[in-house]
Amino acid sequence: MLRVNILTVGDELLCGDVRDSNFQYLASILSDNGIEVCRHMTLMDKTEDVKKAIILSLNESDWVIVTGGLGPTTDDITKEAAAQALGVKLFKSQEKMDELKRRFLSFKKSMPSCNEVQAFLPEGSVALYNSIGTAPGIFAANASGKKLVLLPGPPREMVPMFEEQVLHKLLKESEDRIKKEYIVLRTTGLGESVIQQKVTESKLEKWGVKSAFYASVGDVKIKLSAVGSDIEETVKRLKSAERCLKRRLYPYIYGKGEDEILEKIVGRMLRRQGLTLSIAESCTGGLLAGRLTEVPGSSAFFHLGIVSYSNESKIKQLGVNRKTIEKYGAVSEYVAREMAMGVMWKSKADIGVGITGIAGPAGGTMDKPVGSVYIGLADKRGQIVKYFQFPGDRISVRSRTVQTSLDLLRRRILRIV
Amino acid sequence: MLRVNILTVGDELLCGDVRDSNFQYLASILSDNGIEVCRHMTLMDKTEDVKKAIILSLNESDWVIVTGGLGPTTDDITKEAAAQALGVKLFKSQEKMDELKRRFLSFKKSMPSCNEVQAFLPEGSVALYNSIGTAPGIFAANASGKKLVLLPGPPREMVPMFEEQVLHKLLKESEDRIKKEYIVLRTTGLGESVIQQKVTESKLEKWGVKSAFYASVGDVKIKLSAVGSDIEETVKRLKSAERCLKRRLYPYIYGKGEDEILEKIVGRMLRRQGLTLSIAESCTGGLLAGRLTEVPGSSAFFHLGIVSYSNESKIKQLGVNRKTIEKYGAVSEYVAREMAMGVMWKSKADIGVGITGIAGPAGGTMDKPVGSVYIGLADKRGQIVKYFQFPGDRISVRSRTVQTSLDLLRRRILRIV
Repeated sequence: MLRVNILTVGDELLCGDVRDSNFQYLASILSDNGIEVCRHMTLMDKTEDVKKAIILSLNESDWVIVTGGLGPTTDDITKEAAAQALGVKLFKSQEKMDELKRRFLSFKKSMPSCNEVQAFLPEGSVALYNSIGTAPGIFAANASGKKLVLLPGPPREMVPMFEEQVLHKLLKESEDRIKKEYIVLRTTGLGESVIQQKVTESKLEKWGVKSAFYASVGDVKIKLSAVGSDIEETVKRLKSAERCLKRRLYPYIYGKGEDEILEKIVGRMLRRQGLTLSIAESCTGGLLAGRLTEVPGSSAFFHLGIVSYSNESKIKQLGVNRKTIEKYGAVSEYVAREMAMGVMWKSKADIGVGITGIAGPAGGTMDKPVGSVYIGLADKRGQIVKYFQFPGDRISVRSRTVQTSLDLLRRRILRIV
Repeated sequence: MLRVNILTVGDELLCGDVRDSNFQYLASILSDNGIEVCRHMTLMDKTEDVKKAIILSLNESDWVIVTGGLGPTTDDITKEAAAQALGVKLFKSQEKMDELKRRFLSFKKSMPSCNEVQAFLPEGSVALYNSIGTAPGIFAANASGKKLVLLPGPPREMVPMFEEQVLHKLLKESEDRIKKEYIVLRTTGLGESVIQQKVTESKLEKWGVKSAFYASVGDVKIKLSAVGSDIEETVKRLKSAERCLKRRLYPYIYGKGEDEILEKIVGRMLRRQGLTLSIAESCTGGLLAGRLTEVPGSSAFFHLGIVSYSNESKIKQLGVNRKTIEKYGAVSEYVAREMAMGVMWKSKADIGVGITGIAGPAGGTMDKPVGSVYIGLADKRGQIVKYFQFPGDRISVRSRTVQTSLDLLRRRILRIV
């Protein structure tokens, strides 16, 4: 496999305030293309540090990609460090200087003198055009033919430069190498350890397939990978593993691929079946409505959302019976059921969802501790109410409730519940 | 300043799927305590790589913190690499072995043989207790007295171990060093470049104060920092800079500190003044309600939320006049106003908010392109409606709308609008 090191330059990243999204973006796009990322370093704006890191990285990898430190101010030292690492000098490119001046002219500004440094390039390197900002990127190679790429730090400048001017070179160079292929399966409703165990029992080794697990609140992604020089054959092995897991993990696998989030799947199912939906939320306070309407085109199925935090609003807006609340409490099976039915009738939707629970930190009792949640669902087939006891803090309880409600909807449409 | 290097070990982080939250957490807590993070590296699970990185890091820093690779499987190589870097051997700690066995017993399980490696420690090191998992942490020092700390990778194990058993040692060692102090001011309503310009014009250098800017959707944080050996004097200089900016950036600064997010500020203002709030959302689909209710105690002021996506629900649920929609369109000043008034009346709240707009990607016209949003606010003083044209995609338009609505609420309560 082609090996790449990634370096990120910038004091601001080392104090933990700013997340370095560039590394994750590059690592992900490289991995998806079967290229191995061997090491990542975040470095201060110090010429000597960056120079040493570039030399080290050129020794251990085929390519080195550096982001950040190409701006016009004195703490932008990446180009100088790169020149030193390559053992060359910086020279003034008249072509780049003219281009910079034209650019400032087009903004109707004269070029500040500090920007002149942006026209300096390491000898023997090629400038990469920046369609957004003034800092050109740099493409260079050392004496052993290892490649060094310098990219600007702002993602909106870095991403188009990388995709339009760098990626194809990388892909070309990795063409004849062994590649890694991936499949991502998305599951909900089982914990990471259970999923892991079931996958281990599936003995994917027989297809030469490896698995990795990525858990977020209420959701576990299974990433299957296989290595080979014949892509078609590799994909075939991955598909066999996928079929095996789909059988074993039914009905917990809800989608395939990075973008196939649960709200998208549920929205698509509702649209395809021509069903409409209304929801009444108490403890989730609008988050379920927010997630369902994040997907474009949700107006086709989403009728009405009601956030009924207080007992009064449950009674007045949703028609929940006052006696039900008095007898069983606002957080109860019966109230969840009446909320689901109430919002369905009120809006004449095909499906109604009612959510009531205790997100915390206050409000818990011995009987109903923080994390107690009832999710009700009503449709023409009747009503179901499920009780859950979710762990974690307020944010965690709320997002688990939203995720579980989406899954309950999915299962109801699939007629599993 | 005390200097620290951070290393993260794990193949899974280098393929871009998993975000390394440990680094950001550690970098942030160290910086906040005036300790300098000099370099961060993400490394593969290779003994030789990790060993070399530890040696390099011990050379350039006072402390080295490594997370990950302490588990029981064959790819957990951090302890072996650390022992090699320190020039010592791993030995079996009978005490740890007994503790591990007791632990498995308490889960009513016998200990798998692979877990035995977790009882091995580098000679001369001290084990750190893991209250959550089975992997002990390691605290060691090299011949020059530089400290090496190994922590488990899962954040829920790493964070308590670091906070309870490591942080106080770091703080003690950095006691007599020069320290950096910080203040974070939060602004909304102005772009990053305008904020930056106004801060530059304020000439904070006269107090020896530096500024950095962190922009997220609709929000710019200003981080002011100053270095000094006398903390009180440093804080005094920071406060002078803060007062100066508060004058210059009024009323755009809404809060101070990392945790003082806008919904918290608005919630606190509503509670203090005993005001109640109801909101009617179209294009934001429940996100504003979701953010307002994310703050514990929001039931004190939050009366009712309605997500009225369709025209029918605006008419039936909120009492918007059908003729208003026919004459001006659902995305219009008049509909926003009637939504705000409707939800206020219906729920008998003190303040009503109505939001209608085009989040995209479809639905835009020449007159009202994607990103057109009307935010209406009604209270006993009357109604106001503001028009905005937000840039970006669906997610961006929706979050800018939520942020702007919160700011409008804040300004209304402050009687600025």
